[in-house]
Amino acid sequence: MIKPTITIEYCPKCGWMLRAAYMAQELLTTFSDEIRSVTLLPSETGGRYTIYIDEEIVFDRKESGHFPEIKELKQLVRDVVNPAKSLGHSDKK
Amino acid sequence: MIKPTITIEYCPKCGWMLRAAYMAQELLTTFSDEIRSVTLLPSETGGRYTIYIDEEIVFDRKESGHFPEIKELKQLVRDVVNPAKSLGHSDKK
Repeated sequence: MIKPTITIEYCPKCGWMLRAAYMAQELLTTFSDEIRSVTLLPSETGGRYTIYIDEEIVFDRKESGHFPEIKELKQLVRDVVNPAKSLGHSDKK
Repeated sequence: MIKPTITIEYCPKCGWMLRAAYMAQELLTTFSDEIRSVTLLPSETGGRYTIYIDEEIVFDRKESGHFPEIKELKQLVRDVVNPAKSLGHSDKK
């Protein structure tokens, strides 16, 4: 089975690279067995912060009106890549 | 013209994720106009630290016997993606 690829598309002019790299590292740590890779993709569209699993959008800043909290992002990714996985304290509300 | 994609394949069991993420951020900062994205790819092969531009290997730890210095890595990437680009103080020996 081919593991899914995550892409974090971010607006470099907005200064969001460090945030994207931080989230990439969180995902690679938490989902080391479930995902193939994480790609950091600078956007040409201003204000974009969009996270994809393969080609599918799982989080979009414009849509949501905010950045994802890391706990929220892990839950969204978990629900796609391994729904049975417990996230420990990141699973509490 | 399609900009090249960089991939950093690293051994997660060796604890090299932070190093890979650090280098990803350096490359995204220095080559913001020249590259499309940087992918962090955990390797299933122990001891691997290999950097690709598109499908082409530009640096391999086993081959070289060491990790790339960031200055060295930027020179290697620059030579492929934009040979005319000056790297400032990273161009001195």
